[in-house]
Amino acid sequence: MKKLAFGIDIGGINTAFGLVDEKGELFGESVISTRAYPNYQDYPRYVADLCEAMKLLVAAVNFDFELIGIGVGAPNANFYKGTIETPANLWKFTAEDKDQNANLRMFNFAEDIKSHFPNVPVYVTNDANAATIGEMVYGNAKGMKDFIMVTLGTGVGSGFVSNGEMIYGHDGFAGEFGHVIVERGGRECGCGRKGCLEAYASAIGIKRTAFELMATMNDKSPLRDISFNDMDSAILYQHALKGDPIAKEAFRLTGMRLGYALADAVTITSPEAIFIFGGLAKAGDLILDPIKWYMEENMLFAFKNKVKVLPSGLQNKNAAILGASALVWQNM
Amino acid sequence: MKKLAFGIDIGGINTAFGLVDEKGELFGESVISTRAYPNYQDYPRYVADLCEAMKLLVAAVNFDFELIGIGVGAPNANFYKGTIETPANLWKFTAEDKDQNANLRMFNFAEDIKSHFPNVPVYVTNDANAATIGEMVYGNAKGMKDFIMVTLGTGVGSGFVSNGEMIYGHDGFAGEFGHVIVERGGRECGCGRKGCLEAYASAIGIKRTAFELMATMNDKSPLRDISFNDMDSAILYQHALKGDPIAKEAFRLTGMRLGYALADAVTITSPEAIFIFGGLAKAGDLILDPIKWYMEENMLFAFKNKVKVLPSGLQNKNAAILGASALVWQNM
Repeated sequence: MKKLAFGIDIGGINTAFGLVDEKGELFGESVISTRAYPNYQDYPRYVADLCEAMKLLVAAVNFDFELIGIGVGAPNANFYKGTIETPANLWKFTAEDKDQNANLRMFNFAEDIKSHFPNVPVYVTNDANAATIGEMVYGNAKGMKDFIMVTLGTGVGSGFVSNGEMIYGHDGFAGEFGHVIVERGGRECGCGRKGCLEAYASAIGIKRTAFELMATMNDKSPLRDISFNDMDSAILYQHALKGDPIAKEAFRLTGMRLGYALADAVTITSPEAIFIFGGLAKAGDLILDPIKWYMEENMLFAFKNKVKVLPSGLQNKNAAILGASALVWQNM
Repeated sequence: MKKLAFGIDIGGINTAFGLVDEKGELFGESVISTRAYPNYQDYPRYVADLCEAMKLLVAAVNFDFELIGIGVGAPNANFYKGTIETPANLWKFTAEDKDQNANLRMFNFAEDIKSHFPNVPVYVTNDANAATIGEMVYGNAKGMKDFIMVTLGTGVGSGFVSNGEMIYGHDGFAGEFGHVIVERGGRECGCGRKGCLEAYASAIGIKRTAFELMATMNDKSPLRDISFNDMDSAILYQHALKGDPIAKEAFRLTGMRLGYALADAVTITSPEAIFIFGGLAKAGDLILDPIKWYMEENMLFAFKNKVKVLPSGLQNKNAAILGASALVWQNM
């Protein structure tokens, strides 16, 4: 009988899920709103409604198959414990919970899903790790034992693979490459510290760089008519393609910071390749070229011209669902 | 029958070796000069003489045992290939070899040793990795699956262990933590780049810091009577213990740079503990305290107060031989 795995991607706005075979082919997908369940008290109903929707999807598949597992990618998820821990944008405490200890915002997600799907193994990890495993199982990292995945979205996520295994670390939270310091005492990061890579190389980071450049450069640019809140990385990309000097410089500086940080990461794990994934990666060579150039320029001699920088093989696919489902195939 | 493994530590001056059991007990050790074989042409004689001396040591053991393997720790050694590649201080090319391509300075050490010890497996890795495996097999990292070892000697070496396995990386050269950049455009490093951790946190790095401090501070200090070439980290340690402000500040700054760099490394591999080993580690809390303080101060919230910083469990033992022999037990 055909075997399928569920992949569930929990985002702040929506939760997307689908049934995927071992080759990465998607057999049906669906979505429920995450935002419709904003508070702590809504969480049990969220789980029940999600599982209900998953069962509808199972029923809609018009051939017999075996459901061999459920993989989940979520922010702040812990692979070892199957938990989602104090997720910034999910299931918030409200005023009436104020006496609650914020540290208790721990959701036993794997266990809660299992109660609706008895006898089906459930694997949970953070979204960047899920994307990494997706790259390994279905994408361009197939057969590679040592690589780094960098996801450039609203934040900067990452997954490190060594000896063919995901580096989860002692506590399941390894791979926070977005929070290595690239400018000590630099820009404020959402994590409460200063100078993290994420504050420079995320979709928001490149926008911050563009606004810094509007202050330091004199070039005329239509970007100067756009407010900070109306600006996004897609606009910067469009203008960079048209030759806008501020937008082009913003991409160069973003790639430079990534290149610096990656040269350091390479000295630690010595990967065969680095995959770049996510919104900013859609800019292609505009971002890949400076990453490569500054990484090589700053690379320890032993690693020079050895490490490939490549776009993700899942870039234009439903990568989040695929990545989550890959967790199942990888742990079988 | 009792099983013993050879551990061989190849240094620029001497090559020390010994027979070690699975508990880390040493049954005889010996040494030959490395420096007596300085050139490329001397290498075959070096191998022959080393193996001859090893066989004498085997013969001197007064009980029957099985030699189950030979582990080697050497600079620029490659675990996957069993090679020692362009080692800066070993077997140099001389004037008459100038036409030789420097890239060809590749020594098939494992193979060459095997020709003298047929049917005995030989494992080769760099000295810092050997120390790391020694810590895992005999030392304070016993039972740990995720840890970082930092060796503070003439240079700064490291070994990263994740999922219970050494991170060798794609090419066998991973773990060059001494060459992450801690001050972009900073001090010249032996590797040809600028600002590497090694230029600040090695035994020579702390001496460089002390000399920088003699320029920036006005405090009187007996250190001002010592030339750069006569200074070493042991002298700095003695004066720091006596309260010398320059020596104390040099230790603080050295720990600070290590703490910064380790906070970044923790975000990548999330270790249970970090072990500090080598000459500078003998300074104990003088170096460990600032490492811990600056690491915690700069740590991403998710990792705060979770990662132990500990002295190596092999600090006062024959760590280099033990580490090399541990390679055998770990690969059995």
